[in-house]
Amino acid sequence: MSTLDLPDEWAIRRDQLRNKRPPQNLQPLFHLLHPKQFDRQFLDQMCDLTTDIRTLAKTQHGLARLQGLLSHKRAMLYFTQPSTRTFLSFNNACHILGIKTSEIRDSATSSEVKGETLEDSIRTFSSYVDVIIMRTLGKGLAEKSASLMDSISRPIPIINAGSGKDQHPTQALLDIYTLERSLAHRGGIDHKVIGMMGDLSRGRTARSLAYLMKNYQGVELVFIAPDRFTMEPDILDYLTRHNIRHSQTAELTRVISELDAIYVTRIQSEHDASDGSRDINLADYTVDLSNIDLMKEDAVIMHPLPRGAELSPGIDDDPRAKYWRQERNGMWMRAALLTRIFGAEDTLYEIAR
Amino acid sequence: MSTLDLPDEWAIRRDQLRNKRPPQNLQPLFHLLHPKQFDRQFLDQMCDLTTDIRTLAKTQHGLARLQGLLSHKRAMLYFTQPSTRTFLSFNNACHILGIKTSEIRDSATSSEVKGETLEDSIRTFSSYVDVIIMRTLGKGLAEKSASLMDSISRPIPIINAGSGKDQHPTQALLDIYTLERSLAHRGGIDHKVIGMMGDLSRGRTARSLAYLMKNYQGVELVFIAPDRFTMEPDILDYLTRHNIRHSQTAELTRVISELDAIYVTRIQSEHDASDGSRDINLADYTVDLSNIDLMKEDAVIMHPLPRGAELSPGIDDDPRAKYWRQERNGMWMRAALLTRIFGAEDTLYEIAR
Amino acid sequence: MSTLDLPDEWAIRRDQLRNKRPPQNLQPLFHLLHPKQFDRQFLDQMCDLTTDIRTLAKTQHGLARLQGLLSHKRAMLYFTQPSTRTFLSFNNACHILGIKTSEIRDSATSSEVKGETLEDSIRTFSSYVDVIIMRTLGKGLAEKSASLMDSISRPIPIINAGSGKDQHPTQALLDIYTLERSLAHRGGIDHKVIGMMGDLSRGRTARSLAYLMKNYQGVELVFIAPDRFTMEPDILDYLTRHNIRHSQTAELTRVISELDAIYVTRIQSEHDASDGSRDINLADYTVDLSNIDLMKEDAVIMHPLPRGAELSPGIDDDPRAKYWRQERNGMWMRAALLTRIFGAEDTLYEIAR
Repeated sequence: MSTLDLPDEWAIRRDQLRNKRPPQNLQPLFHLLHPKQFDRQFLDQMCDLTTDIRTLAKTQHGLARLQGLLSHKRAMLYFTQPSTRTFLSFNNACHILGIKTSEIRDSATSSEVKGETLEDSIRTFSSYVDVIIMRTLGKGLAEKSASLMDSISRPIPIINAGSGKDQHPTQALLDIYTLERSLAHRGGIDHKVIGMMGDLSRGRTARSLAYLMKNYQGVELVFIAPDRFTMEPDILDYLTRHNIRHSQTAELTRVISELDAIYVTRIQSEHDASDGSRDINLADYTVDLSNIDLMKEDAVIMHPLPRGAELSPGIDDDPRAKYWRQERNGMWMRAALLTRIFGAEDTLYEIAR
Repeated sequence: MSTLDLPDEWAIRRDQLRNKRPPQNLQPLFHLLHPKQFDRQFLDQMCDLTTDIRTLAKTQHGLARLQGLLSHKRAMLYFTQPSTRTFLSFNNACHILGIKTSEIRDSATSSEVKGETLEDSIRTFSSYVDVIIMRTLGKGLAEKSASLMDSISRPIPIINAGSGKDQHPTQALLDIYTLERSLAHRGGIDHKVIGMMGDLSRGRTARSLAYLMKNYQGVELVFIAPDRFTMEPDILDYLTRHNIRHSQTAELTRVISELDAIYVTRIQSEHDASDGSRDINLADYTVDLSNIDLMKEDAVIMHPLPRGAELSPGIDDDPRAKYWRQERNGMWMRAALLTRIFGAEDTLYEIAR
Repeated sequence: MSTLDLPDEWAIRRDQLRNKRPPQNLQPLFHLLHPKQFDRQFLDQMCDLTTDIRTLAKTQHGLARLQGLLSHKRAMLYFTQPSTRTFLSFNNACHILGIKTSEIRDSATSSEVKGETLEDSIRTFSSYVDVIIMRTLGKGLAEKSASLMDSISRPIPIINAGSGKDQHPTQALLDIYTLERSLAHRGGIDHKVIGMMGDLSRGRTARSLAYLMKNYQGVELVFIAPDRFTMEPDILDYLTRHNIRHSQTAELTRVISELDAIYVTRIQSEHDASDGSRDINLADYTVDLSNIDLMKEDAVIMHPLPRGAELSPGIDDDPRAKYWRQERNGMWMRAALLTRIFGAEDTLYEIAR
């Protein structure tokens, strides 16, 4: 098992942090809209920044200093598609950095806004706050909002916190961070065998994660799904074009012992009725006490949550289960993202001294 | 009338506070679930801490210092049973101490969470915050959540902010505080005659307060209720076992002049239809201008609020009416509770110097 | 075009602010209920204070200091009539000054409160916070709440954030501020020709603005509306009594070139069905690319937002379009209002040094 969680390691990190300077090659980041914005350098910088913020937050003094980092900023959380998890994660990321938050979380509250165009609503929010974090049911609305911002005299950043079945770039970031960290004692994501299981055809989290593998060396992907839910051709073609090894199977037991990590997702019941998933034995796409011992001793089990029957609470205490940490990492990664967007790295490393 | 509210008294308290040290015998408090956790020492310590925080908050400088006390903490207010009063009281208690708050206040907002188990929702909240304050319609859910916390590697405290018709321990604390403070010039709760009136069979506030009287010396309880709404046998047996004197009557006028305090509660209309409370003359269980002068000159009138017709706004200006102060005390007691749960007493008394 | 927005001007203002003292003749302000409270001195002081706060907020250091100004205060935003724009404006005004906010924004959340009288709800809020900002569907409720406060021993200020079709005094303040600022290079509002267009009979914003013109010298008002929506006789009589020149027309093109400013409002569709506004050609009461060039070069175009078809997004980039700035001014004016209500001007100018 990894030594990553020993208190000693955090003490060492704290010592290192005192002498650290922000990277010299930081590109300014404004909107965060799509995982295609992420290259290896960006991903590595974000992972590093996330760990540095977590390190600082390990002490009460560090937490107190962090709160002053962006306390002059105000955020709007505009969630017309309810998502308690993503909302709370962002809200608390803001709170960690001292950012004041305003929220719209359901259609009833935003009834008046509905009388106007999305553009006018977004521009209104931009009158009052310094960043808009938006989650919508429809696709493309974050991009549309970002375009509006780029056309006005006082633009503010737009963060896409999930747009329908489309894109969820901050989920992709936290997934990469958790995978990289959990595999750090073995050299990180490079050269690992990573399984993805569940409804791969419609699950945007698995699709995004597969897409981002082009940024890592020698990764092999194993897609585990019933026939009806296999990864779509667009991603398979993309992987082929980028020379990323990948294979598909409908049988978890045939591959489970070879995986360095498995990313489990739901076969969502709401889609089931029309396409015959009732014929699928969901138990075949489940990680639980009956098969976890077939996995490598230091394998990594992840899940975007919320979970269904595909991930048994019975394995929550297994050291390989990283999904609760993954969830918590989301908050820290989002704090790092806000720090990056507001260009506050210099101040962060000053604080850490 | 009491001299408790003269500015001079607060000035004296402020002077005393400068030299005060936290009690030496403080037991750590983690979850707050049930009034049965409260013994006399705990109640006295909490009353004392509440008054000290109020004292500190009497000046702008003190308020400014208090905000730094727990500004590194984050709270989740998870209120699936709406309760504006308890919500606002806790929310502002958090704000007084600098605690950042996230909230779920209705079923619509928590729709996604509903797709998962309570355990997974609670564990998710615990990923993001440092304390969960929860109010639920069903009973036992705070206890269940606390058990989950006790089983994981990164537990956080659970505060029960009311669970259906079951328990409401922070209401019991604020009731005790108000009673003790309002009677302080006469030696506190010990040896007092305390009336409880209204629907005593289903009202959890009166039940909890009666239960807590075992912690005080020589208290005599007088239950005033129509036959259908008398105190349940479990509490009566409990009082008998603990040698707490108590009596019952259906006629307020027979006992009103003997009471040192009266705790008025509603006979709730929503229960009425099925059990014939329509036959009851509610005016018989009312405190108003027609009978307040029958009360002792320094009697204490309390009510958990919101009120119905049983408590006339006409007596709000009477110095014996303590229910608005009782409501406000709830905020201060909850601030004290959070201070205690996070073990911040030492810092508090440093701040006060 | 005005030079008001050049960075240089803000630098000059910042320098001036360092030597500034608060006015000596400040009257304490408690409740803010109705535009009739505003005289010229008050309006000028509020405009001045708003600009000073904006000036201070131009730097990160200033913003950080502003957050400490009222960080010991807590506000209740009680919005039983949803209004996203006004809510966000007030919420962020509070955040700028460090005021902690609690909110009730829809009927579902306030269900429990509904079981009690408005007086008891308002008194409950006053137990927990230092100011109540309320927006209601019914008229007169802010006044009623203020009367309650004036009768109790621990009153807090009430701010009317809009009461149905009745009054919306903070909108009037931000309209005055925007008009005064936008015309500052030409001597301010005095002696200007100001058009008001749209549904003037029911639009409270235009009515309030017309009413406040008695505070300025030599203003001429031009009401532009279809016959069914002309300004009501009460306002016309009032203007006549106060010797304020005014005229009415149904034809924008006849007057557009003479206006120093135009305040555009909606002819609201929800009223249309019953009174035949379907016969009206709404295009006649619209500002867009087809007629903006008929306006003076330095005319001011305002709108309370949200807009309908009467104000074309096509003119948003025109330097005469001030409505987005007007919206943003609302937040700054509300921050100034809170500063004034809490009597924090002295501290503000200390901060600015």
